[in-house]
Amino acid sequence: MIRDNYTCARRSRVLQGALTIAVLTIMAGQTGNALQSPKLSVMPLPKSAETGQGEFKLDEHFHAGFSGAHDARLDGALDRFLVRLNQQCGGVRRRQYDAKDGDPLTLTLAVAGPGGVVQGLDEDESYKLAVSPAGATLTAATDVGAMHGLETFLQLATMRDGACSLSAVTIDDAPRFAWRGFHLDVVRHFEPIGVIERTLDGMAVAKLNVFHWHLSDDQGFRAESKKFPRLTEVSSLGQFYTQDEMRHIVAYARARGIRVMPEFDVPGHTASWVHAYPELGDGRTVTRIPQEFQDYEKNQGELDPTKESTYKFLDAFIGEMAEIFPDTYFHIGGDEVDGSGWKTSASIQEFMQKKRFKTKDDLQAYFNQRLLPIVQKHGKKMVGWDEILNPALPKDIIVQSWRGEESLSAGAAQGYTGLLSAPYYLDGQKTSEEMFLADPIPAETKLTPEQQSKIIGGEVCMWAEQLHPETVDSRIWPRTIAVAERFWSPQNDRDVADMYRRLQVVSLELEDAGLTHISGPATLRRSIVGSTHTGALDVLASVTEPVSFGDREDVQHTDALTPLNGLVDAVVADPPARQEIAAEVDALVNEHSKGAEAALRERFLAWQQATPQLLALAQRSGRFADAGPRVEQLAALATVGLESLAYLDAHTAPPAGWLDKQKALLKNAEQPAAYVRFVFLPALGKLAESAAASR
Amino acid sequence: MIRDNYTCARRSRVLQGALTIAVLTIMAGQTGNALQSPKLSVMPLPKSAETGQGEFKLDEHFHAGFSGAHDARLDGALDRFLVRLNQQCGGVRRRQYDAKDGDPLTLTLAVAGPGGVVQGLDEDESYKLAVSPAGATLTAATDVGAMHGLETFLQLATMRDGACSLSAVTIDDAPRFAWRGFHLDVVRHFEPIGVIERTLDGMAVAKLNVFHWHLSDDQGFRAESKKFPRLTEVSSLGQFYTQDEMRHIVAYARARGIRVMPEFDVPGHTASWVHAYPELGDGRTVTRIPQEFQDYEKNQGELDPTKESTYKFLDAFIGEMAEIFPDTYFHIGGDEVDGSGWKTSASIQEFMQKKRFKTKDDLQAYFNQRLLPIVQKHGKKMVGWDEILNPALPKDIIVQSWRGEESLSAGAAQGYTGLLSAPYYLDGQKTSEEMFLADPIPAETKLTPEQQSKIIGGEVCMWAEQLHPETVDSRIWPRTIAVAERFWSPQNDRDVADMYRRLQVVSLELEDAGLTHISGPATLRRSIVGSTHTGALDVLASVTEPVSFGDREDVQHTDALTPLNGLVDAVVADPPARQEIAAEVDALVNEHSKGAEAALRERFLAWQQATPQLLALAQRSGRFADAGPRVEQLAALATVGLESLAYLDAHTAPPAGWLDKQKALLKNAEQPAAYVRFVFLPALGKLAESAAASR
Repeated sequence: MIRDNYTCARRSRVLQGALTIAVLTIMAGQTGNALQSPKLSVMPLPKSAETGQGEFKLDEHFHAGFSGAHDARLDGALDRFLVRLNQQCGGVRRRQYDAKDGDPLTLTLAVAGPGGVVQGLDEDESYKLAVSPAGATLTAATDVGAMHGLETFLQLATMRDGACSLSAVTIDDAPRFAWRGFHLDVVRHFEPIGVIERTLDGMAVAKLNVFHWHLSDDQGFRAESKKFPRLTEVSSLGQFYTQDEMRHIVAYARARGIRVMPEFDVPGHTASWVHAYPELGDGRTVTRIPQEFQDYEKNQGELDPTKESTYKFLDAFIGEMAEIFPDTYFHIGGDEVDGSGWKTSASIQEFMQKKRFKTKDDLQAYFNQRLLPIVQKHGKKMVGWDEILNPALPKDIIVQSWRGEESLSAGAAQGYTGLLSAPYYLDGQKTSEEMFLADPIPAETKLTPEQQSKIIGGEVCMWAEQLHPETVDSRIWPRTIAVAERFWSPQNDRDVADMYRRLQVVSLELEDAGLTHISGPATLRRSIVGSTHTGALDVLASVTEPVSFGDREDVQHTDALTPLNGLVDAVVADPPARQEIAAEVDALVNEHSKGAEAALRERFLAWQQATPQLLALAQRSGRFADAGPRVEQLAALATVGLESLAYLDAHTAPPAGWLDKQKALLKNAEQPAAYVRFVFLPALGKLAESAAASR
Repeated sequence: MIRDNYTCARRSRVLQGALTIAVLTIMAGQTGNALQSPKLSVMPLPKSAETGQGEFKLDEHFHAGFSGAHDARLDGALDRFLVRLNQQCGGVRRRQYDAKDGDPLTLTLAVAGPGGVVQGLDEDESYKLAVSPAGATLTAATDVGAMHGLETFLQLATMRDGACSLSAVTIDDAPRFAWRGFHLDVVRHFEPIGVIERTLDGMAVAKLNVFHWHLSDDQGFRAESKKFPRLTEVSSLGQFYTQDEMRHIVAYARARGIRVMPEFDVPGHTASWVHAYPELGDGRTVTRIPQEFQDYEKNQGELDPTKESTYKFLDAFIGEMAEIFPDTYFHIGGDEVDGSGWKTSASIQEFMQKKRFKTKDDLQAYFNQRLLPIVQKHGKKMVGWDEILNPALPKDIIVQSWRGEESLSAGAAQGYTGLLSAPYYLDGQKTSEEMFLADPIPAETKLTPEQQSKIIGGEVCMWAEQLHPETVDSRIWPRTIAVAERFWSPQNDRDVADMYRRLQVVSLELEDAGLTHISGPATLRRSIVGSTHTGALDVLASVTEPVSFGDREDVQHTDALTPLNGLVDAVVADPPARQEIAAEVDALVNEHSKGAEAALRERFLAWQQATPQLLALAQRSGRFADAGPRVEQLAALATVGLESLAYLDAHTAPPAGWLDKQKALLKNAEQPAAYVRFVFLPALGKLAESAAASR
């Protein structure tokens, strides 16, 4: 199997093992879905759900409203809910003011209060939703809880017999973790406001509640500062968010129960700062905004932690940003400080000697100690990546772990509050299963309950080196909602098959909410083929997925200008075919299912039939040339499949050496090519093994 | 054939003939493509193109740059061009600063000057593009001409033998009409900034140069006014553009050589104004923003033209907007004044008697005469719809004709400058062919050359009653680019078959530019089916198109809250199958083509096979229930086709009465159902006729 050495890496060349995932995968079979609930198609699964009798039919008498006081935010949320429900179901009441006086409520919202003026970690996000044939009642302590309940209601509404209805059910729901984040890098590739908005829409569906906005890095500065306008004037290539736009995003997120935490990464990853304001730097010159992602040595400028002026600048800057972002938390990055410029600067070396700092880490700890009171002065609590963890810092900082669970546990054991991110790096291109099973607090944890309470959640991370606005959604969704379930639902929710069943349903719901994770790659496939007739390419795409960030990076050395226009960009991580083929092979091998055999034969024939067109495309198009070897492999693997079916069908053992030959073909197909990997190799191997044992 | 009575109507219930189109269609066969040019896949076609020898291959040595001075706008345009070229082709030079010193230019831009500080009607948009195996030279008088040339270059670049190349060619190009507009209503359904941006991107591909932004109407006020904040506070339901956003759009458009002309429709279509500022009104109360599109009587408020305060308000408002929109032209609407409120107002009646005005038209003429100096005072020229045409107004106003060509010609004959819009109403759901052949100045015009010079172009119009952000692009594209060719290319460019050939190519290019006209309806089809397996629905969708706005409106009475989530919303106007099936039938009937026969048989079988799944869907989903009859018709029509093929194949005449029965089935299928119509009925009728004559 192709493994990704960069699975847990933040984004640099640091090698990290990814053992956690393997351990958790082994456990998956041991636990079922502990919820004693009906087969809901809801995601994330609620804490508890009890089925009732009958169903609540939605029709033109449907009338949603409030039993008591409520604020404007919830009015807006209800209006959006009604528009979506009507688009999903049709024929239901469309807006609150459509109601005539005296119409009885059939969906009653009872909300105790609005929740925090600034949503905090202590926000009560719980809700209760009771659905009976006569109607539904949604009860919540806050707007945010009510909004979660409305999302659940939309997921429960199902079209059958010509209309939408909800089966009777009583749901009592609350999140397991208070911090359920999604991190988006908008530096390596910029994303327009529309992408941010629809990402927030998707987060609301997933009941995620923190949008972590990575706004600065070496390759650009994306947040307008009026105090320091050169940050975007010379370091954004025109791609940045105005202060109005950032305020708009904060409001848009709050309307959906989502906090916005900005990140301004210091004192490393700061070439864009130093390019704009050289006096902040360590003495190296940043002559242009780097477009490369890896060549830090040549271009990177890091802040000089020894100068008082650096802190004066940060004080003014953070103060300005603190007014735009009301959230209590402020992310200062702090990762991957290179420090080579600190070594070559005489004044920095002199400072370090005077302070008796031995390593760059000592100097960074000093920097963080200086930064902390500045962050606090502006009413914020500090968050940073792993590297900020240092005994010199007080316990009320939050450490976001990109190095892995071990590092997270070590922090918790020392009393630091932590967030897990390592297993949730989307560009690791892991399966939904792997990401879903990775737990911030695994069942076998050795932490004490007190220590466990320090782990307050996690964040899904999307880095942007290989993102294109056309396909960005397909990199994020639907896998992110599998992790969102991990953050929300009870620890013993580990039924992978049911998770995949629900993921297919919710994936389409995400499209209804405006996301383009299915349509984006399909558009790119039309572009590659130069035609709307993409059948052959769709066949290949449906059984391949991108290799990890690192595996692509090693070969291609992408930068901000690399075209993202090939096969790898037009396929999605963990496509449904992986599950489908594995299930078909199991059904054939274990139960001799004729239906499964027919389905597999149809697949293998489709692979064969796609081959000539795809080889011609590889010949014609430079955008597909690298896929030629993959196409030839697909044809060979189709033969593996068809021959296996023939031996099984004939109850005849293949000749000696046949299985070895098939295994060699499978092994060959595991090799990297065209930055994509096949998703069916284990299942096909199993089929061949079974054929070899045929008699 | 189903005809649309509302083809030429602005959007109300006025009935208009659409005779122009029929006349032009008859002419289509008479003229070929007059260009003595190779088969370019460029759209709009250039004025002249001469093929050369060999081809210019794009590779990593490709280097685009300037031979002389140029401004920042063109730097930005070249950078965007390079990013798109690289995404389209891969492996070419990616940004201007990638070049090493001394690298020779292989695409040289020579631009005489930037063009108007505010782009005007006299902007020189011409360019020359010479491509030889050694490289290309693009010469233009202005930035705008150069940008048009870059679009042509992108269309000439073709992938073959593993890389992109351009066949040698010399193009000398300039537009036929100076005003090539696209009008978008953002009131009936609001469109987010992202939709506006990508619409401008599509306009740039189409070489359209005026974005006409319909910002106010009864159902809402979409432009922020700081002087009159209630306009959006109470009359937008939160859906409006801030002044910053409008300035951003103006800049975004200018960067692409596109003017932005705002429209604020007065003195009718003003319920949103009067709802916010009742003192502007004619005395009727506007208690809420109307969500209905037709019930003007109940809700509409029209401005009171008799009060001085009305003009004072308009003066201040237009002054504010004039600063945001630098374009010379300002559209004041002026259409469809109802005047019933003027009749019931005692003070207005008294005023009219005093002025000896007999009709509401007289009062509107007075209003326009008062408005004109206000518009002029703020440096603008006045544009309005047909109804503003009145001898009382001077000749330098521009009249936009929604009533049709006759009205346009009448204006030109009186010396008024005019724009044609009537044949270009996208919601009329006409074919690309019909819209392409409609000419602002037809060859058979009776206007003198002097009068012809008064017709300066036209505008494609998109009204928004039935638009959803998910499918809006599919309503606009690719048909709009067929009209854009009419506005740009020589009058004798009337080769419909070649237009359709090129339209398929450019349709995919529009997707590369970010438009979603193919992916949007596909997403909606997934939502209807509730699955990614939409094969059966795709079969139906590929041979149906929406009925016209009017035909849908007559039955459904849509309003702003109507769900737009059914079959009609998930199909596109004039799908490729219309041309394909017609061509296949012709090839079979005229040339006995076996390939065409096989293709037709495959289609008819696919129609049959799709039926059971589609009937089950109609049973299950309220969103598809109305399509049941259409599905049954599709099955019956498949049988018409298969029986026709059988008789033709057997060289046997069908029994007596067979043809009549088939004709009855075809006739039945012409009836309205599910707001969609079949696109293949004439071709299938021809096939059946041919089968009936079989022997």
